[in-house]
Amino acid sequence: MRTIAVLAFDTVVGFELAMPGQIFGSARSADGEALYRVRICAPSPDIQVNAAGGPSHRMLAPFGLDGLDGAGTVIVPAHETDDIPPVILDALRRKHSDGARVASICTGAEVLAAAGLLDDRPAATHWRHADRIARRFPRVRFDASVLYVDDGRVLTGAGVSAGIDLCLHLIRRDHGAAVAAEVARRIVMAPERGGGQAQFIPWDNDPGDDRQLADTMTWARARLHAPLTLDELAAHARVSVRTLIRRFREQTSQTPLQWLIGQRVQRARELLETTNLDMEDIARRCGFGVATALRHQFRRRLATTPTAYRQAFRSEHPA
Amino acid sequence: MRTIAVLAFDTVVGFELAMPGQIFGSARSADGEALYRVRICAPSPDIQVNAAGGPSHRMLAPFGLDGLDGAGTVIVPAHETDDIPPVILDALRRKHSDGARVASICTGAEVLAAAGLLDDRPAATHWRHADRIARRFPRVRFDASVLYVDDGRVLTGAGVSAGIDLCLHLIRRDHGAAVAAEVARRIVMAPERGGGQAQFIPWDNDPGDDRQLADTMTWARARLHAPLTLDELAAHARVSVRTLIRRFREQTSQTPLQWLIGQRVQRARELLETTNLDMEDIARRCGFGVATALRHQFRRRLATTPTAYRQAFRSEHPA
Repeated sequence: MRTIAVLAFDTVVGFELAMPGQIFGSARSADGEALYRVRICAPSPDIQVNAAGGPSHRMLAPFGLDGLDGAGTVIVPAHETDDIPPVILDALRRKHSDGARVASICTGAEVLAAAGLLDDRPAATHWRHADRIARRFPRVRFDASVLYVDDGRVLTGAGVSAGIDLCLHLIRRDHGAAVAAEVARRIVMAPERGGGQAQFIPWDNDPGDDRQLADTMTWARARLHAPLTLDELAAHARVSVRTLIRRFREQTSQTPLQWLIGQRVQRARELLETTNLDMEDIARRCGFGVATALRHQFRRRLATTPTAYRQAFRSEHPA
Repeated sequence: MRTIAVLAFDTVVGFELAMPGQIFGSARSADGEALYRVRICAPSPDIQVNAAGGPSHRMLAPFGLDGLDGAGTVIVPAHETDDIPPVILDALRRKHSDGARVASICTGAEVLAAAGLLDDRPAATHWRHADRIARRFPRVRFDASVLYVDDGRVLTGAGVSAGIDLCLHLIRRDHGAAVAAEVARRIVMAPERGGGQAQFIPWDNDPGDDRQLADTMTWARARLHAPLTLDELAAHARVSVRTLIRRFREQTSQTPLQWLIGQRVQRARELLETTNLDMEDIARRCGFGVATALRHQFRRRLATTPTAYRQAFRSEHPA
């Protein structure tokens, strides 16, 4: 039987705190034997547990940090504080150097990053916090578009429920797809969800502040049905094409045309969510020309199809 | 701001206990104001919280049962005990007769049923426990195939994660699809999942014990590729068609031909999960003849398509 330690300190998010116990605790061998024991370990016996939006209740932690001994995997859920106890960071570094797997759920990635365990690695975290955490830890290669990242002995899950996908992935790694699929059924979740976290990021989640090119971007967004060229964008911004590209890179980390495709995809998402327009019509209104091109960019950028996206996200009564 | 009370007593399942706080706690108005406050209420201050497979930790409950006052909605998560405190049942009956909404997650439906609140109503619960709970409470019309049932002021969710769908549904009812979709994005879940719970019930989840017709069923299962008739089944069982129908009804609550279609669908699920065979081939091998018929029965019985089912449940390396 494998031992999983869940590391908790004050402000731990309760839903994610309980997630490993629910998921690993449901894993059974063909003979019906439990495959994991899950221990909640904390640096003090009385821990504040949070819900979204603030404190929820207090927990009496069943294990101290000595409960980490013998655990082959340590999982860190999200915590709603910047004040990470140094004993937590020490414990994580020690477990990692002893050969244990370490994994995070949601903004638990910030704790792994603070311990230095994500330096020069790819990592996932909640899309709402990815930019902030990436600025704080520039050596970490955050990817907000995926549900989780498996980098061998260091794994990171995206926001909240993506922790379920991460736990199922670990069970699949340890015991194969059939055991993981059985767990998925017991918890009434798909064993492997299609698409990544990208499809959950709002189409209007644009940093948007303080941009020299704001006017040109607004102008372009009003013309997404049209095939806009670099020359047209540069002319509107009253700069050379070379300067336009440099400014776009500085402000969006993208070329103007990459940014434009992103805007077209965002407009398509908006139309898929809020209208009954057919795919060809949406493709035309967003400047993709034909539905095939829309589908191609959708798959590249969101790892899903326009049809699946519409089914998942449309409002009940589209206009 | 609406108040949601989560009712907990010893053995409450931690993942579901924390679910409402996470989901309702994430709901925001257009101005960014919190739309719900969530209170955990318990009959005693120190509560045992379970994970799948047994006790996890103890919780200091922030509210007693007086915390129910002012709550317009009461949610009961799963508990791993048959020993429901009478004060819990009284509190639920009182809240219901006072006009509050009551809702359950997973086997929390058993608590609502014990309080008499599900009598003569449709209800959802975890597929693994639906038969047992239905036998205990014969007046409840359990449907294991759906993710949740909204019966006005009484709502019930199916197993574990279906509680997420139920909470999102309540937010949609209270504040509309856009608010619920934003919450879904924050928790990285689809706002409305396709299919019901039916797709998560294993194809070999057959009670199977103590059946007079066991031999004939085994014989039929070995011939699912063929179009079996009532006469052939009766001949194998050495009974009249009328007796065959009666015995199938007694033992499966279905007619022989309904049972047979169920077996064909189960075989199709097995082949979709474990092989790369195309739809026409699978339809043929399961006795549906053509893929259109397979799709029709899939949609009727599982509320999803064979293609979506295969994507969700196939093993990583099908034979």
